[in-house]
Amino acid sequence: MYYELLLPDLRMALAENDDLALREFCEVLFPAACAEILAELNAADAWRVLSKCRLERRAEIFGFLPLAFQVELVDLIDRQSLSRMIEEMAADDRVDLLECLDREHVESLLPLIAQAERTDIRKLLSYPEESAGAIMTTEYASLPQNITVQEAFEKLRLQAPDRETIYYIYILDEQRRLLGFISMRKLILAKPKQLLSEIMARDVVSVRVDDDQEEVAEKINRYGFIAIPVVDNERRLVGIVTHDDAADVIREEAEEDQQRLVAVAPLDESYLTTSVLTLAQKRGVWLFFLLGAAFVTAKIVGFYEGNSEQGWMIMFLPLVLASGGNAGSQSAALVISALARERSQSSSAYNKRAQRILVREFALSCLLGGSMSVFSLLVAWVLTGSLVAAIHVSSTVLLVVVIAAVTGAALPLIIQYFNADPAYMSTPLIAAMVDMMGVVIYFNVAYLIFGHLPGM
Amino acid sequence: MYYELLLPDLRMALAENDDLALREFCEVLFPAACAEILAELNAADAWRVLSKCRLERRAEIFGFLPLAFQVELVDLIDRQSLSRMIEEMAADDRVDLLECLDREHVESLLPLIAQAERTDIRKLLSYPEESAGAIMTTEYASLPQNITVQEAFEKLRLQAPDRETIYYIYILDEQRRLLGFISMRKLILAKPKQLLSEIMARDVVSVRVDDDQEEVAEKINRYGFIAIPVVDNERRLVGIVTHDDAADVIREEAEEDQQRLVAVAPLDESYLTTSVLTLAQKRGVWLFFLLGAAFVTAKIVGFYEGNSEQGWMIMFLPLVLASGGNAGSQSAALVISALARERSQSSSAYNKRAQRILVREFALSCLLGGSMSVFSLLVAWVLTGSLVAAIHVSSTVLLVVVIAAVTGAALPLIIQYFNADPAYMSTPLIAAMVDMMGVVIYFNVAYLIFGHLPGM
Repeated sequence: MYYELLLPDLRMALAENDDLALREFCEVLFPAACAEILAELNAADAWRVLSKCRLERRAEIFGFLPLAFQVELVDLIDRQSLSRMIEEMAADDRVDLLECLDREHVESLLPLIAQAERTDIRKLLSYPEESAGAIMTTEYASLPQNITVQEAFEKLRLQAPDRETIYYIYILDEQRRLLGFISMRKLILAKPKQLLSEIMARDVVSVRVDDDQEEVAEKINRYGFIAIPVVDNERRLVGIVTHDDAADVIREEAEEDQQRLVAVAPLDESYLTTSVLTLAQKRGVWLFFLLGAAFVTAKIVGFYEGNSEQGWMIMFLPLVLASGGNAGSQSAALVISALARERSQSSSAYNKRAQRILVREFALSCLLGGSMSVFSLLVAWVLTGSLVAAIHVSSTVLLVVVIAAVTGAALPLIIQYFNADPAYMSTPLIAAMVDMMGVVIYFNVAYLIFGHLPGM
Repeated sequence: MYYELLLPDLRMALAENDDLALREFCEVLFPAACAEILAELNAADAWRVLSKCRLERRAEIFGFLPLAFQVELVDLIDRQSLSRMIEEMAADDRVDLLECLDREHVESLLPLIAQAERTDIRKLLSYPEESAGAIMTTEYASLPQNITVQEAFEKLRLQAPDRETIYYIYILDEQRRLLGFISMRKLILAKPKQLLSEIMARDVVSVRVDDDQEEVAEKINRYGFIAIPVVDNERRLVGIVTHDDAADVIREEAEEDQQRLVAVAPLDESYLTTSVLTLAQKRGVWLFFLLGAAFVTAKIVGFYEGNSEQGWMIMFLPLVLASGGNAGSQSAALVISALARERSQSSSAYNKRAQRILVREFALSCLLGGSMSVFSLLVAWVLTGSLVAAIHVSSTVLLVVVIAAVTGAALPLIIQYFNADPAYMSTPLIAAMVDMMGVVIYFNVAYLIFGHLPGM
């Protein structure tokens, strides 16, 4: 990225308190590009830059910052400036932000925000999560049907500055019911004296405000639309969902599907911003369920092999290997998609993040492995009646889960280190490696505990 | 979908040879909506409808049909009509189609296509797969910098009908080098006498023609662009990639990542249109590699347990369970993403497709399981020196792989049958179920072969 070259300049301007340079930085680049560079600073510095910039532009750049970073910044901004900025932000972006703040914080801000915007915010906040209403914006361009093309252009000039898109124009009646639709392309090709009612398309593809966001995104994608209108039960237009928000939904849903595929309950945030405790919960619920299933399998093996010493050995081997494989697959899949999110970065940033990921996975797997180990101790004791057998199972579960999770996280990192795509790592491959290490651990722990290999 | 209601009408019009109704059908709906309904007909009927329709419209609708269906249709269309339609199609859509046809077929068509279009096709076909060049279109709106806003509108009116988008206008010098960019919004807000050079943004975010399509899609998504310009080494504008193609790339890449995650080499087409032999290859290459790894694990177990009868039993159990788990995970992941592609459909279509999936998975798993079984027979014989042990391993590998693949495919289908999201099925859950069934098979086959349970 050539934008990386601008970061040193920006830091210099900050060090020298060069307000003019800071202001220019915000004005010259695309807002999304500014946001990308600001996200590399700490929150205090980022706010110092933003505060130098025109309110309108500031709100625009702010909307492109990662949500977690926006939340960090909110704590640094006084309530007055914050409410002005929220008024200026795009309707859908500001609702995304407010949904991340505490309820009390939002309630303390709302009175400072202008009436019209406040009503809009309250309305958008009221739609259920993952519905069309929750991802739409209310800033659409609309016109009545009985005006001419020439008049339409005049009206659009007034609407243009604060509408999310003016390329799709929705034609409404007095009750704001959706009658038709005209693209800007068609408007430009039409004769100035033509009435909008003559040129509008009447068969408008729309979604309902309570439709699932995934369906909405699929529809936009299938039709190749820039935006799709969102209507209520009376077919009144209440908002639009734009193509860029639809693309975000496609990406998010793909990530969720991938998490589900490796038995992780979908995360609300990205892997790196989710706390270790939340991750433990989202992963643990499935790991414990699968551990339960593995004990059923062990019981079936026990039915065939009996409770002799070599019976135990064969009984719990699949359980230990499966626990390791499951934990390792989860780690690998989460780390792979975390790495895919932010690909291009410097090697120092790579090292810092790699360390952070490995430390987190180690802590997490101690937590998960530890509790699975306690559970295994009790169940194995009950199943076999032998405390040593149970100690053997529970200690190998702990060791294998920790090693599997760290391996699962480390392999994609190593692949990325060599500039290859971490997505080339697969969960069955992790499981196969865990199987090898698991077997070695399983038999050596047995040797340590029993002083000989059971059954020999 | 309310469009489903139109299908009976369309069939009626076809039965009655009602050309007027067929023509109207093509004209009234959005092209994407037409295409969706036509895809429900057989190819011959679809072509009968399309042939009634204006050439321009026909090309547009055709571009929205699924690629596999386009290829089917091509065989029904005479070369003359086909080349006329290809001339009219969007530059990126027609290249996507031509890439799916045989080389000879393409070469026989090209001479019939107008010179300008032909040059364009040859150029787009020459870019490497998955590069910006391969997904871009050459139909962008461009203007020189030294004209006024008013003149710009006049020129855009001429360009509007056949450009993929006119909402982003690229400003080029005489060598077609990219100087700047103006959005239609800005143009509408500008004063008629202003020069484009005064209002254009000069810091244009662009991609290079050989950039990876994934990076391109990410960039469009991050900036929320409708399109992104594609430049060559001399910064000459050679095309644009639009938001809808970028969304397709995001979806495809997510699907590929998901396939890699369960150790399937990425498919070029969708699961349902890929042949059983190709699937066997894409899955088999990894299954065999993992089977090899499992034999290493078996060898390690053998090192601890020795070659006694109960040694064999514990030695190969992880291998058999892992093979089943891997095959089952592949099936589940592929079927889940195939179901996600086309969600809404009638129950008769559901039944037909479910049957087809299960039959395919059965055939596929016999093929894969069979060859894995032969490989296992040889390796296990060499490792243990015992033919009966090798027969036990190889027959259980076959049985478990077949049962695992069919189970992996059936569970998402069952979940969808109850109107839940098949993505709730996870591969570790499949593996856990395969473990249970695998253990039962493993010991019962042993009982059949040895007449007793080894080690008892």
